[in-house]
Amino acid sequence: MSADRSDQLHQNRATAVATPLAQASGLLRVATGGPGCTEISADVARWLREVEAGDGIVHLLIRHTSASLMIQENADPDVQHDLVAALRRLAPEGPHYRHDSEGPDDMPAHIKAMMMPVTLSVPVLNGRMRLGTWQGIYVVEHRARPHRREVALHFIGTCMAP
Amino acid sequence: MSADRSDQLHQNRATAVATPLAQASGLLRVATGGPGCTEISADVARWLREVEAGDGIVHLLIRHTSASLMIQENADPDVQHDLVAALRRLAPEGPHYRHDSEGPDDMPAHIKAMMMPVTLSVPVLNGRMRLGTWQGIYVVEHRARPHRREVALHFIGTCMAP
Amino acid sequence: MSADRSDQLHQNRATAVATPLAQASGLLRVATGGPGCTEISADVARWLREVEAGDGIVHLLIRHTSASLMIQENADPDVQHDLVAALRRLAPEGPHYRHDSEGPDDMPAHIKAMMMPVTLSVPVLNGRMRLGTWQGIYVVEHRARPHRREVALHFIGTCMAP
Repeated sequence: MSADRSDQLHQNRATAVATPLAQASGLLRVATGGPGCTEISADVARWLREVEAGDGIVHLLIRHTSASLMIQENADPDVQHDLVAALRRLAPEGPHYRHDSEGPDDMPAHIKAMMMPVTLSVPVLNGRMRLGTWQGIYVVEHRARPHRREVALHFIGTCMAP
Repeated sequence: MSADRSDQLHQNRATAVATPLAQASGLLRVATGGPGCTEISADVARWLREVEAGDGIVHLLIRHTSASLMIQENADPDVQHDLVAALRRLAPEGPHYRHDSEGPDDMPAHIKAMMMPVTLSVPVLNGRMRLGTWQGIYVVEHRARPHRREVALHFIGTCMAP
Repeated sequence: MSADRSDQLHQNRATAVATPLAQASGLLRVATGGPGCTEISADVARWLREVEAGDGIVHLLIRHTSASLMIQENADPDVQHDLVAALRRLAPEGPHYRHDSEGPDDMPAHIKAMMMPVTLSVPVLNGRMRLGTWQGIYVVEHRARPHRREVALHFIGTCMAP
């Protein structure tokens, strides 16, 4: 195990003073189609370009309690099918819930949301997220019917030179 | 799917230079009553007012391995009851654990803590967290008995004009 | 429940203007030995010293979809054994997955990764992470064989006085 020191940036105070940090705030609206995964990586990347992000962190918050954020494999679509099926096994519908006023899929949706990320903080270098080769960012819909979901975006870091 | 550009702030470097970023650090102490959820949204909101937070990110870290942070529905208390019951089913007590020196509820508590957030990063605009309408922030106690828990707070962003 | 105000820092804009924020970026390479937990707390702490971190946030992103980040007890090694066993029960191998082209351990690994943190944001004061007494940061390997894993590091905050 070793730290790779080759890509460290702005290690000293002098550099930081010379490049003051900025921030930008935005909102993604995502239309889901019922249980499943909607990739938003390209939308986040586009927003980072629009706000001229350089180096920093992009924060995501999903503003709902029955849908989740996820970073997962974006190569084989079967993976997403199996992930959704696994969530259904971990939090099945049934008569054992007290909260049932919003339909049989609502309480399982809250349980799934409890087990998955609500916020993500992704490092950005030269305007690009430092995701792994196979990683994509997704909104995961837990409810049975399509919904409109909101993801709050916030970038803190340097801006690209104009 | 589309990005809402109406609420983007500080998109260009000039604005950022004019509004240097500040930070503030704090600690919440939370008394829990055994398995269940304690809402801390109002405590975090009050702290943001005290430190005169403007736009930025508030970070939370729960400093324990048998309790969790959670963002969940704060409308129907039955939801919280069902969430705690679901955690009990996912990580039941039993004789199948090696680690049993701290009581039968300890290892299930660690498993629950593994599956839920330890850190959260919530965007803040004009001093207010951008949570969804029904979202509240909770400390979830996984141990059988009441505990005193600590949540580290850290804000990075602009401060309100004096 | 009460906020401890004794350790709040930089509450007002004046202080922040006087101590501009810096950032640093790095990469940890972690060799895992198959299913299990590898503690990286000391590596992250060492990197924070190298970049002369003062007060701020250190962000971690694991750049993989079949391994996870975790903050858990670092006292009794039996805890880690039981955590890995619990993950195996929650996401068992079996013939019920569509995605099986990368071996029987691959889809269970993605499910485990879905339920655990991909990013962490840890507050730092005076160069030290504000982790609890018993908390350590781990890379959790979900695949059956050893892998080389990468964790992106990013610090935003003040730097130590030279």
